Amino acid sequence: MSKYWSELVRGLEPYVPGEQPKDRKYIKLNTNENPYPPSPAVLEVIHKHTGNDLRLYPDPDGDILKTAIANYFQVKKKNVFVGNGSDEVLAFAFMTFFKQKKQILYPDITYSFYPVYSRIFEIEAATIPLTGDFRISLADYPIDNGGIIFPNPNAPTGRLLTLEQIESLLKRNTESVVIVDEAYVDFGGNSCIPLINNYPNLLVIQTLSKSRSLAGIRVGFAVGASELIDGLERAKNCFNSYTLDRLALVAATAAINDRIYFETKCQAIIATREWVKNELEKLGFEVIPSAANFVLIQHQNRKAGELFSALRQRGVLVRYFKLPRIDNHLRVTIGTDGEMQEFIKQLQAILSGGRPAT
Amino acid sequence: MSKYWSELVRGLEPYVPGEQPKDRKYIKLNTNENPYPPSPAVLEVIHKHTGNDLRLYPDPDGDILKTAIANYFQVKKKNVFVGNGSDEVLAFAFMTFFKQKKQILYPDITYSFYPVYSRIFEIEAATIPLTGDFRISLADYPIDNGGIIFPNPNAPTGRLLTLEQIESLLKRNTESVVIVDEAYVDFGGNSCIPLINNYPNLLVIQTLSKSRSLAGIRVGFAVGASELIDGLERAKNCFNSYTLDRLALVAATAAINDRIYFETKCQAIIATREWVKNELEKLGFEVIPSAANFVLIQHQNRKAGELFSALRQRGVLVRYFKLPRIDNHLRVTIGTDGEMQEFIKQLQAILSGGRPAT
Repeated sequence: MSKYWSELVRGLEPYVPGEQPKDRKYIKLNTNENPYPPSPAVLEVIHKHTGNDLRLYPDPDGDILKTAIANYFQVKKKNVFVGNGSDEVLAFAFMTFFKQKKQILYPDITYSFYPVYSRIFEIEAATIPLTGDFRISLADYPIDNGGIIFPNPNAPTGRLLTLEQIESLLKRNTESVVIVDEAYVDFGGNSCIPLINNYPNLLVIQTLSKSRSLAGIRVGFAVGASELIDGLERAKNCFNSYTLDRLALVAATAAINDRIYFETKCQAIIATREWVKNELEKLGFEVIPSAANFVLIQHQNRKAGELFSALRQRGVLVRYFKLPRIDNHLRVTIGTDGEMQEFIKQLQAILSGGRPAT
Repeated sequence: MSKYWSELVRGLEPYVPGEQPKDRKYIKLNTNENPYPPSPAVLEVIHKHTGNDLRLYPDPDGDILKTAIANYFQVKKKNVFVGNGSDEVLAFAFMTFFKQKKQILYPDITYSFYPVYSRIFEIEAATIPLTGDFRISLADYPIDNGGIIFPNPNAPTGRLLTLEQIESLLKRNTESVVIVDEAYVDFGGNSCIPLINNYPNLLVIQTLSKSRSLAGIRVGFAVGASELIDGLERAKNCFNSYTLDRLALVAATAAINDRIYFETKCQAIIATREWVKNELEKLGFEVIPSAANFVLIQHQNRKAGELFSALRQRGVLVRYFKLPRIDNHLRVTIGTDGEMQEFIKQLQAILSGGRPAT
């Protein structure tokens, strides 16, 4: 703390991302990265653009990427906003749509960056509890609000809402912006993007960090009515003119354009997830049905904290949140088949009381 | 404008960066990019890191880059903050140090992003006029302020303050943060960074976009007392955990480490600038003494707006701000010797009333 900090910054509690360990090599199932490499087309296009033009500013509007996203989702370029990871897109969205007098609403168990944004932009927020079986119940969201945000599927539960459920909310909640954070939608859900033409207050946010294997490149985007996108552009252009560098723009464009690679890898992760779910259930875990690249699990008689530590000792990193209602759960990212076989093997050893095979 | 925008965003006036033309090929002297390519070491390291690891998040702390910068300036890693271009670093600095009740101060003619940040973070600002010959007079800055920021050398004038002048301000202004924006310092100035050990309220911001030829990669940094850096980290971690991607981190590190390439190119640009200044004076221009990679010029009897348009028609882009006090000036980036010879040639033709040689 320093006397030179603003009162705002003194009061902040930063988001804590999952550990990026430097001490040893782990099977890393803690930050929902994709176990498969990016499309070869991505690597090729980066190599091609690594040259003298890096001395020049990138296109501040990111036109090539917006065009690729617009084509992919069959919307217009003016319906697309791009940013330095979906976290940055979320930050601009909070600033643009949620910074107002009424409370915004989000689930009590959800992406833990939402309360952080609320604090930094001085937005009042209220949480709406998930149901007992960890479902988002949109009927519980009162329409007198300053905005609504939720991930679909939700994180860290993995539970999915149907488009009908979301559309039913949009029909009655017309006076504030509804943000659907689709970071994980490609692993089993349907995107809300087709609804943007009917609902001018719907903003859909996606990332290339998960399903397109580009966490290391930092690209996210939003799709919505052009008036919403204009507002995001305005906020962004008051903060940083060039948020996406030249290589990120071409890499993300290539990733969006390689549809077959993307679909193949998503299918592989879904298949692995269903295998893991089955194995975990055999080991006495309750596994919340997931449409994401992770599962939230709870053992019938072993404490999550103990399992977390035992797995870590055996070289497997998972995520343990220690938060109300999920303080006995672990979130496990879906890795490759080989990684998940090893994870299950180590769990079997831990549960049978064996020592780590170091 | 949309009813869904927050009041804050409705009131914003975004920063407008220099044109990035797509219609034809220009000699581009309008956005202060470096005419020379990045160090070959930068391109090599990007190629080397373009691989499967792009699926993984980057180090959110950017340790390798902070270490390189700390070594270069002989400070500690805890004295260094890194961000997605110096604009993002400036944004976090405004949020962290300037968002308070007292007015912040900056020159009336300066980087036009400062008023934009003031507006978006709802900070009161007052401008202090440059002297008649466009110098910053730090003695004119009252100490009852919420913070002071100025570029050194100033933009778009190019005029330099000495370290003694800055230290004299720091001696009397101890209760608010003083930010020295050194985007252009490598083209003829001395960095204030050695002063950070004596002045806990001094923050120095630099960019790799100009002197290190990496505008296309988006990296900037701040150096200051560790308590100031901690505040910036806190703001950043409430906004976006991973602002620098994997390739930007290694590229910027390689650029900082290739000291000889950097110094050679800075010297080349300085030599070209002095040649251009001389040629411009022969053509009847007043050239403000510049320590930057640009010159601010005014012709004794031709209007800046006309010259701007005539140059553009002839394929040379320069910057014309149309702002009070400098609405008859042009800012011209220093390009290669060949580009500047062509610029002078086209100016000669314009001034002698010739038609464009198309």
